Amino acid sequence: MRLIGLEDVEDIALGASLLGAGGGGDPYVGKLAAMAAIRECGPVTLLDADEVPDDAFVVPSAGMGAPTVLTEKGFGSNTEIQALKDNVQRFFGREVYATLPAEAGGVNSMFPLIVAARLGIPMVDADGMGRAFPELQMVTFTIGGVRTTPMAWADEKGNFGVLDTISNKWAEDVARSVTMVCGGAVSIMLFGMDGAKLKECGVHGIVTRSQQLGRAIRQAKHLAAEEGLTPEEFFLRFTGGHKLFKGKISDVLREMRGAFNYGRVKLAGIGDYKGSAAYVDFQNENLCCVVDDRMVATTPDMICLVDVETFMPVPTDALKYGKRVMVVGLECFNLWRTPEGLELAGPRYFGLDTYYIPVEERCKMAVAEGEVA
Amino acid sequence: MRLIGLEDVEDIALGASLLGAGGGGDPYVGKLAAMAAIRECGPVTLLDADEVPDDAFVVPSAGMGAPTVLTEKGFGSNTEIQALKDNVQRFFGREVYATLPAEAGGVNSMFPLIVAARLGIPMVDADGMGRAFPELQMVTFTIGGVRTTPMAWADEKGNFGVLDTISNKWAEDVARSVTMVCGGAVSIMLFGMDGAKLKECGVHGIVTRSQQLGRAIRQAKHLAAEEGLTPEEFFLRFTGGHKLFKGKISDVLREMRGAFNYGRVKLAGIGDYKGSAAYVDFQNENLCCVVDDRMVATTPDMICLVDVETFMPVPTDALKYGKRVMVVGLECFNLWRTPEGLELAGPRYFGLDTYYIPVEERCKMAVAEGEVA
Repeated sequence: MRLIGLEDVEDIALGASLLGAGGGGDPYVGKLAAMAAIRECGPVTLLDADEVPDDAFVVPSAGMGAPTVLTEKGFGSNTEIQALKDNVQRFFGREVYATLPAEAGGVNSMFPLIVAARLGIPMVDADGMGRAFPELQMVTFTIGGVRTTPMAWADEKGNFGVLDTISNKWAEDVARSVTMVCGGAVSIMLFGMDGAKLKECGVHGIVTRSQQLGRAIRQAKHLAAEEGLTPEEFFLRFTGGHKLFKGKISDVLREMRGAFNYGRVKLAGIGDYKGSAAYVDFQNENLCCVVDDRMVATTPDMICLVDVETFMPVPTDALKYGKRVMVVGLECFNLWRTPEGLELAGPRYFGLDTYYIPVEERCKMAVAEGEVA
Repeated sequence: MRLIGLEDVEDIALGASLLGAGGGGDPYVGKLAAMAAIRECGPVTLLDADEVPDDAFVVPSAGMGAPTVLTEKGFGSNTEIQALKDNVQRFFGREVYATLPAEAGGVNSMFPLIVAARLGIPMVDADGMGRAFPELQMVTFTIGGVRTTPMAWADEKGNFGVLDTISNKWAEDVARSVTMVCGGAVSIMLFGMDGAKLKECGVHGIVTRSQQLGRAIRQAKHLAAEEGLTPEEFFLRFTGGHKLFKGKISDVLREMRGAFNYGRVKLAGIGDYKGSAAYVDFQNENLCCVVDDRMVATTPDMICLVDVETFMPVPTDALKYGKRVMVVGLECFNLWRTPEGLELAGPRYFGLDTYYIPVEERCKMAVAEGEVA
């Protein structure tokens, strides 16, 4: 157990943008809202998952919809959050003991901080993804058999409601349509569960990891020097990242279909990769990385683009011609590599015609075949 | 107070198809479902609005969505109805004393009979339209200041929820999107209110009127003979209808836009109207009738097409080339003629560029100018 104050929020947000794997939305406005809530209501108590009583009722919270809209509409007002909590409690007939991120990557890393601060309840150091994903049911809680519903939603205008659906995919579908009609973004509380269940299927320690990642990015040069490494070596070692490619953005293709951003970023190699070419496909988050026609990483592993100098994550909406980036593969949480995990968020769910091979295996194979320096 | 048994349902449904004003959906399948519910659970107690205690909690019930879909999916299962009632009671913290139609025209005339029979509660002889309209907020309850929400919805698969919105139009928008994603039709309970409020702004006696209209249509020839009238004279006198036109359908134009059926039926005059032409425009329900370029009736008055021989109502989805119909204008409930009523459901709301003039005034003007026989 520790307290999350203003200075912690900065690093958590930065780490969360790496865990966003290109998507999840820029945590910037969320960070400001979280800081405002902490300034107003005091620091947030962060509990380890193991510190939550087995029979305590915990409910993740999040923003749903287009991150760009969340940013414009603002989110996390007192009225919205109170409506969410009241409705969750009314349906479950239980007091909310603590909240936590459903999704620790991107802007949704910040939302539960606002909820915890404003309601005066703790936040748990765990989430249901260990990264960002585009759909509600894509959480380790689903793998653990937790129902999305009863879930509560509220918008900034004062509309709110509760859903109870026959499957987690139905919750996604109904809530998505409500989100669209309410202007593209709503606040939600969902996946209410016992502490015992959270311990079993949550991604433990993800908030702390996010904060550490943020700090490592911010101080990469300084910390690298202390350890006698180049900043890139330090970054890769600290994040456990696999270097997939280094290149200059040569083209960006984008398309809106349904509620999602689809696209491809093309890269021309620089440095060791000079003469090579790569691309990364995305649906909100990055889905796969292909280098010289060879697939080197796929979802559910994280594929992150970072600035070659500063290691700052480059989300899909900030992709620009000429920018120099390193493509890094981060190993996903182990539950995503189970058959149930791959069914929810593996390559075939997203329409990629490939089996899932862990990013570290793909990298080993490539090295063995002499295709990667 | 009286009991509604199987034989009553038949006439109520027939009358409701006239009050549907071309829309509202064919009550046929609803009639079968209502009869099944009554057969299983016994007759339904019908209360006059004046018999409802002022402080009793009454909640209209309805099907929302495309009537054709309601018909295919079936509706009014025990599970759906129980979910609706439980959720309404949970949100209001009050027992439901009775239900009633939100809309007495079309298939929604039957839904509250199913609810009342299955829950063992009375139905009130009142509704919020006195006819059919396409959107939720178009009820006299809105004019009386009743909120649509908290409203409950449930689908046949087992999904359900509750909405609470900042306006009755927002309830329409959010519920409409939920309806679409759940397959085009859901069951709803909404506009929960006190008995006192219902007495003030409901359309009293509409179920009984519907039953009388149904009986009059069914026995028109017989009853006309008893009174020494032609069947047409009898039909017009009994319904209080204004004869607007008599013709043969010469063309039907249809278009689906959003969740609505738009279209125009063109008529070539027969009998007294030989040589004339008319058309009726509709958006689910009939919106206006134009005879020889002269507007002779508009919403919120009811414009009904009936078979020239049998006086059976012809809904928009049964319009067919060559069919001979009489176009009849029925005066709407007085609250629709107030500024608030016209704002909700007057000609301009539906995009017609005309002031509202009551159908009986338009007919008088036409007669005075010698344009109508």
